[in-house]
Amino acid sequence: MNLVFNAPSTDKSELEDAGDFTPRFDDRGLITAIVTDAHDGELLMVAHMNAEALALTIKTKTAHYYSRSRGKLWKKGETSGNLQTVTEIRTDCDQDAIWLKVVVAGHDATCHTGRRSCFYRTVELEDGKPVLNVVDDHLHFDPSEIYRK
Amino acid sequence: MNLVFNAPSTDKSELEDAGDFTPRFDDRGLITAIVTDAHDGELLMVAHMNAEALALTIKTKTAHYYSRSRGKLWKKGETSGNLQTVTEIRTDCDQDAIWLKVVVAGHDATCHTGRRSCFYRTVELEDGKPVLNVVDDHLHFDPSEIYRK
Repeated sequence: MNLVFNAPSTDKSELEDAGDFTPRFDDRGLITAIVTDAHDGELLMVAHMNAEALALTIKTKTAHYYSRSRGKLWKKGETSGNLQTVTEIRTDCDQDAIWLKVVVAGHDATCHTGRRSCFYRTVELEDGKPVLNVVDDHLHFDPSEIYRK
Repeated sequence: MNLVFNAPSTDKSELEDAGDFTPRFDDRGLITAIVTDAHDGELLMVAHMNAEALALTIKTKTAHYYSRSRGKLWKKGETSGNLQTVTEIRTDCDQDAIWLKVVVAGHDATCHTGRRSCFYRTVELEDGKPVLNVVDDHLHFDPSEIYRK
């Protein structure tokens, strides 16, 4: 089964209705994917998908992305074992973003640093300067072991 | 007080540490912002910020974005009254995305369609085709009243 996405309508109100899912990829052919934990809603990561990654994710219920740094399809967790099983997919009003609710396998960690979420630091103003403070330093795995070549 | 963001390090591990917040704007000068409700974590919207919008958001604790369609700074809720007060800001491991936890004023609605969240539709496969189903059709305000010219 080959999944084909129809071209988005140029009529804004049509994009906002029920009916055909017509994702609006940007000029690089990518769409933003927001990933939250299906259990408690925690924001885990933000990534990008091309049409192939999106189609694979919808068909297999295992999250696939497009790695901009490596320039190729990326089955999340293929190396670390932290695969993401998708329990629900949503899109937003103008269909240029995707929300995945996922159950994380393996170490229950999504960030390559070993943390549960990529969003482990707050941004705060200190003496008028924007600084980062780590609010989650629990490593679920040792990145140097998991990603060694 | 003028907020200045230092240039991001080219050393990936430095980007992942505590210390300076050095947001990585893309080649259009934008960074992705994920917005969730501070009360229950519901994903409300995804938008973009330029450096000015990000600095204003950090300084004023009221969410500002950059409207790509209008090509200008956008104080969210200025027309509808649904201003967003920011209770926490986070960034991700490579500092190319921002997470805002917000309290929404006015109608407690974020989507211009009148719904609480922009993500009011699920993506599902029906007869091998990806289709959208509306899962939240509660309108908190009447868009034709709020946005009339």
